[in-house]
Amino acid sequence: MRIVIALGGNALLPKGAKGTAGEQLDAAKKAITEIEDVLKKNQVVLTHGNGPQVGNLLLQQSGTKEVAEMPLDVLDAMTQGQIGYFIASAISLTGLHSATLITRVVVDPEDKAFENPTKPVGPFYEKQIKPGMKMDAGRGYRLVVPSPTPLKIREHDAISALLERNFVVIAVGGGGIPIKNNGEGLEAVIDKDKATSLLATQINADLLVFVTSVDCVYLNFGKPNPSKLSKTSISIAKKYMAEGHFAEGSMKPKVESVIKFLENGGKKAIICSINNIRLALQEKAGTIISNV
Amino acid sequence: MRIVIALGGNALLPKGAKGTAGEQLDAAKKAITEIEDVLKKNQVVLTHGNGPQVGNLLLQQSGTKEVAEMPLDVLDAMTQGQIGYFIASAISLTGLHSATLITRVVVDPEDKAFENPTKPVGPFYEKQIKPGMKMDAGRGYRLVVPSPTPLKIREHDAISALLERNFVVIAVGGGGIPIKNNGEGLEAVIDKDKATSLLATQINADLLVFVTSVDCVYLNFGKPNPSKLSKTSISIAKKYMAEGHFAEGSMKPKVESVIKFLENGGKKAIICSINNIRLALQEKAGTIISNV
Repeated sequence: MRIVIALGGNALLPKGAKGTAGEQLDAAKKAITEIEDVLKKNQVVLTHGNGPQVGNLLLQQSGTKEVAEMPLDVLDAMTQGQIGYFIASAISLTGLHSATLITRVVVDPEDKAFENPTKPVGPFYEKQIKPGMKMDAGRGYRLVVPSPTPLKIREHDAISALLERNFVVIAVGGGGIPIKNNGEGLEAVIDKDKATSLLATQINADLLVFVTSVDCVYLNFGKPNPSKLSKTSISIAKKYMAEGHFAEGSMKPKVESVIKFLENGGKKAIICSINNIRLALQEKAGTIISNV
Repeated sequence: MRIVIALGGNALLPKGAKGTAGEQLDAAKKAITEIEDVLKKNQVVLTHGNGPQVGNLLLQQSGTKEVAEMPLDVLDAMTQGQIGYFIASAISLTGLHSATLITRVVVDPEDKAFENPTKPVGPFYEKQIKPGMKMDAGRGYRLVVPSPTPLKIREHDAISALLERNFVVIAVGGGGIPIKNNGEGLEAVIDKDKATSLLATQINADLLVFVTSVDCVYLNFGKPNPSKLSKTSISIAKKYMAEGHFAEGSMKPKVESVIKFLENGGKKAIICSINNIRLALQEKAGTIISNV
């Protein structure tokens, strides 16, 4: 089976961690241990976030004026190398062979997101030290960048070629590096869940898995009467979404990305935590969403 | 033909440049323009250095105490992402498809190099701010790390798989990330020329090309009577090396790496500049070294 698994930020950098190499490597080892059987029995692509790591690089850049600052697309590439290497190191302990690919994602430079940047990235500042900064919820000024819709994973063909040769592929880190069709980089951030869903469609994955910090999708999440959603379909998931059950910037983009994958020909998707992924693959845990 | 081309630091970051993203991208575009025909007609792996980029990251890290410092192996991974992305962007303009692979290289943790670190990396400091720093030629203290012999390019199989599918592969950046056989990273630097030669052997390359800042190998280089070495063989190259014609840390490691590739079954190697690589491939420029 061909599976795309998106590892949430929490699976690779525990909350409250400073982000040392040791912490990141340990988290990657724990995550890979949980999915070792899955990796051995299937063709798997692992995608991952990069928020805290990019934030750290932005902070370092602003602290050392004698070194040229890199734009966001280049920082994305650097965090793909960093985090991909941690995951690859963890996979090496299983005896499997992996391949970490620097991954670019084509977006439309005319995407309306460029007129209205919405995605805050990096550290907080007391004042606007560069263009594009906005006050973030009274906590300080932050760089706010556009989050355009991903149109094409540029390296999807290389990813498929590696999967066919049984490599565990690590790709689309941080949602991928946003580029124009001619390869020119853009100062933007692509939503990791959207990019992962697109990749799953482009490489004809049988299954898309979002690993998140909760064990499954909940209805009435955070309210007095939460209930687990174990199995559902596109139509019912859409109904729940319309009713406002899924939080913006958290579960909603995952459910939306799952629906998009299923509407584009995907058969099944799972939303679960790293600890229950094995049970979820047996449909004994997590939230299973099917294309019927 | 299967060709491995090592791009020298000068080809990707001109002397005196600060290393901005624009400078690095422009240099990559110029280099790729020179080899576009070569890339279109052959299976090509491009390797590259990372000295100035790693130096800049070390400098940034020391300037921002609130962010966790990454060890050298992780910084290598980050620069592979950074530089690989610049090269991939340049390749996109040719219409070719590329794949940038984070590449690890197995070394022996008992390598004698670990007892005697010799490779200075990163910025100069007025005093020893951390263990492993040594005075460098009276200019200040610098981090000095071991340079162990590369034993195996861990990702050689993924590189071959991608070449067979006609991707231009960007790999072994900065000589690769030094790891133990179990995948654990090491605080060391691998010589880019040695690692490139090893890769060429492992993937059965027909040709190994070292792109450097001079147009070919010279005898009596830097002396009143320099002479171009246009064609030679292993045995004659060894004789010249024994006579001290090639500078330590500059041309000598390249010639040594060429000899190793040829002794391990390679047929032909070229040492040339980026501007004359096309002529060199027609044996009309550069230094051609054959296995006879």
